[in-house]
Formats: sequence, structure tokens, C-alpha cells
Amino acid sequence: MPTTSPRLRTDAAVNRTKILDTAWEVFATEGLGVPMSEIARRAGLGVATLYRRFPTKEDLVAAVFSEQMVECGDLLDVALSDPDPWHAFCQVIGQMCAMQAQDRGFSKACVTAFPNTAQFRASRERAERGFAELVERAQAAGALRRDFDLTDLTVVLLANSGVRGDTPEATNAASRRLVAYLLQAFRADGGAPLPPPAAVSLDAALR
Amino acid sequence: MPTTSPRLRTDAAVNRTKILDTAWEVFATEGLGVPMSEIARRAGLGVATLYRRFPTKEDLVAAVFSEQMVECGDLLDVALSDPDPWHAFCQVIGQMCAMQAQDRGFSKACVTAFPNTAQFRASRERAERGFAELVERAQAAGALRRDFDLTDLTVVLLANSGVRGDTPEATNAASRRLVAYLLQAFRADGGAPLPPPAAVSLDAALR
Repeated sequence: MPTTSPRLRTDAAVNRTKILDTAWEVFATEGLGVPMSEIARRAGLGVATLYRRFPTKEDLVAAVFSEQMVECGDLLDVALSDPDPWHAFCQVIGQMCAMQAQDRGFSKACVTAFPNTAQFRASRERAERGFAELVERAQAAGALRRDFDLTDLTVVLLANSGVRGDTPEATNAASRRLVAYLLQAFRADGGAPLPPPAAVSLDAALR
Repeated sequence: MPTTSPRLRTDAAVNRTKILDTAWEVFATEGLGVPMSEIARRAGLGVATLYRRFPTKEDLVAAVFSEQMVECGDLLDVALSDPDPWHAFCQVIGQMCAMQAQDRGFSKACVTAFPNTAQFRASRERAERGFAELVERAQAAGALRRDFDLTDLTVVLLANSGVRGDTPEATNAASRRLVAYLLQAFRADGGAPLPPPAAVSLDAALR
């Protein structure tokens, strides 16, 4: 039976993590234009090691974003099959914020424009359409206030991105508290008129 | 009549701004332990220029934080003299968030521990007592929900610190929108129970 040295497997996993973490950081802060050689340098690895794992830049970009994109799409699919549109809306907001509190890359992958390949544009548009449909259903059911605006999702994710505790548990607790307050405010019986929706994009949060 | 060259006055003002901006950044990210010589170096100025304006480290710290501290204290004093405790509470939250949206230093100066000199500790404790009294009054009046916790102010400020738009106007608009939603959630008639308060401190936001 062929075996692989556990030591080798560990090194490979460590290198892969290093590459993906570094690439995520670099793409998020400087965009997709940074050369592969620079990503290898910052990850502390040889450029050959990088190309062995990710033969093209597109492979690397896809690896960095695909996991989050799939999660984001799944989340919306589950919500859209929920017969209770208010419950579905709350689940999506709550789960996106929980994932964001645990992994700051998640909501960026859901809403940002920068992996601007056809595949990611399509996933993003699908997510946006899905969320818009969810909002429409929850408003039609009289559960979500009529002046909830699609840009409010960005406000929620930006606000949630600012919430940080001294420990992951504290960050999660603070995020849950924020989300619980916001969901109460979003209920149709929540009340008074709001100031106009904000012209914010999540891309601003990446700078 | 003695005159000062406008050019000289401009240079002096530019240097003062450079010093205060640099010192703020350094104190916020690395604490008060960074030596004066290092602050001068990062501001791109000679150490003599720095000492001419701020003879001691304490003078520099006071200059960096005092303006914000005074604003923060004034805001709470005005609120505590307001006969309507719910209006006062909304004003404090709204104004702190508006100031924070325009000047990210403001809320740090209000709540952070790091200018740990006796003067600032006293100002901070005064602000904390003032806010606690405001909360108590608004709850006693039946306007603020009873499960609003003092740590929720930190959650609000952290959330608000995450809200950023492409322009200052967009940032302000997004902040106003967030605050309006949160204030509706804080109303006593707001509803359902919340998850427990979060063990977050604003100091976490400084790292």
C-alpha cells in the first residue's frame, strides 16, 4: 500500500494555507493585478512552489474565492426554498454576519466585485438577485418594513465588519447582539421613518 | 504693527497637524510607549521641532486627545440636562456616531483606556458615569428597553466604525441609517428578547 509521509503532507497543507491566506490579503487590499512572483515572495515561498499548486492566476483566484462563493450561494438557495419569507430573511442576515464574524473574507466574496471573471460575476449576480427576491417576498408578506433598501445589506455587513472582541467568542457574541437589534428594527411593525438609504458599496470596506 | 509672515504661519500649522496626526496614529496602534524621537521621525520632522511645540510627552498626549475629550464631555452634559431622557439618549448615540463617522479618533478618545493619565482617566470615568445615568433615566421613563446593556454602546461604536462609504457624505449617510435602525431597536416597545450582551471593549477596535 503506498503511503505518504505525514510530515510531507503537513508541509504541503501549510504551504497551501500560506499561499491562500497571502493571496486573499493581497487581492483584498491591492486587487488582482499583483503578480504571482510577488505573491510567492510575500508567502515566503519559491515561485515554482506556487506555480506547481496553481498553474495560472485564475486558478489561484478561483481557489481563494470559490469556497466562500459556494457557501454564499447555498445559503441563499436554502433561504429561497423556505416557506416563511421573514424567517428566511433573518436566517440569511444572521448567517452571513456569523460567517463574516468568523471569516472576514466571506462577505467580501459574497458582494465584492473584484474577482471580476465571468464565473464570479455570474455568482455575484445570482446572489444579488436571490437576496432581492427574498426582500421582495418578506415585504409582500408584510413582515419586512417597506423602506428596507437593498443597500441596507451593505450597511449591515459593514457594521458587522467593525464588530471585534478580544476573543473569537466575544466577536461572535457582539455580532449576534448587533444582528438581533437590527432584525428587530427591520420588522414591518418597527416604526418611524428612516433617513434615506446610504450610497455605500462594500468595496469601500476593502480599502 | 507687528506682522507674521503668512508663509511661516502656514508652515507652523502644517507641522502641528503633521505631529498631531502622526502621534494619534502611533498612540492608537502602538500605545503611548513610543518615544518622542520616533514620533518626530515618522512625522518627517526634526526632534527639536517636536520638543519646541510639545516640551513633554504628556503635553503631546493631552493635545492629541483633549479636543475630543472635551467634546465628548460636553455632549453628555447637554444630554444630562435634557428633560426628555429618551431624546437625550438618542442625541448622545446619534452625535457620537456622527462625530465618529467624521473623525475616527473621537469615539476612541471617549471610551478608550490608553491615555491613562489621571486627567484622562477622570474624564473617561465621568463620561461612563454620565452615560450610565442617561441609560438609567431612559429605562426608568419606560422609553429604553430594560435589557439594553452598557456594553451595547461599545457594540454601536464598533459597528459604526465599520461603516465606510466612497465619500465622506456616503459614510455619514450610512452611519445615519445604521443609527436610525439601532435606535428603533433600542425603544422599549421594540420587542423580542436579545442574545446576551457581548464581552467586547472598544480597545479591541484599536488593534
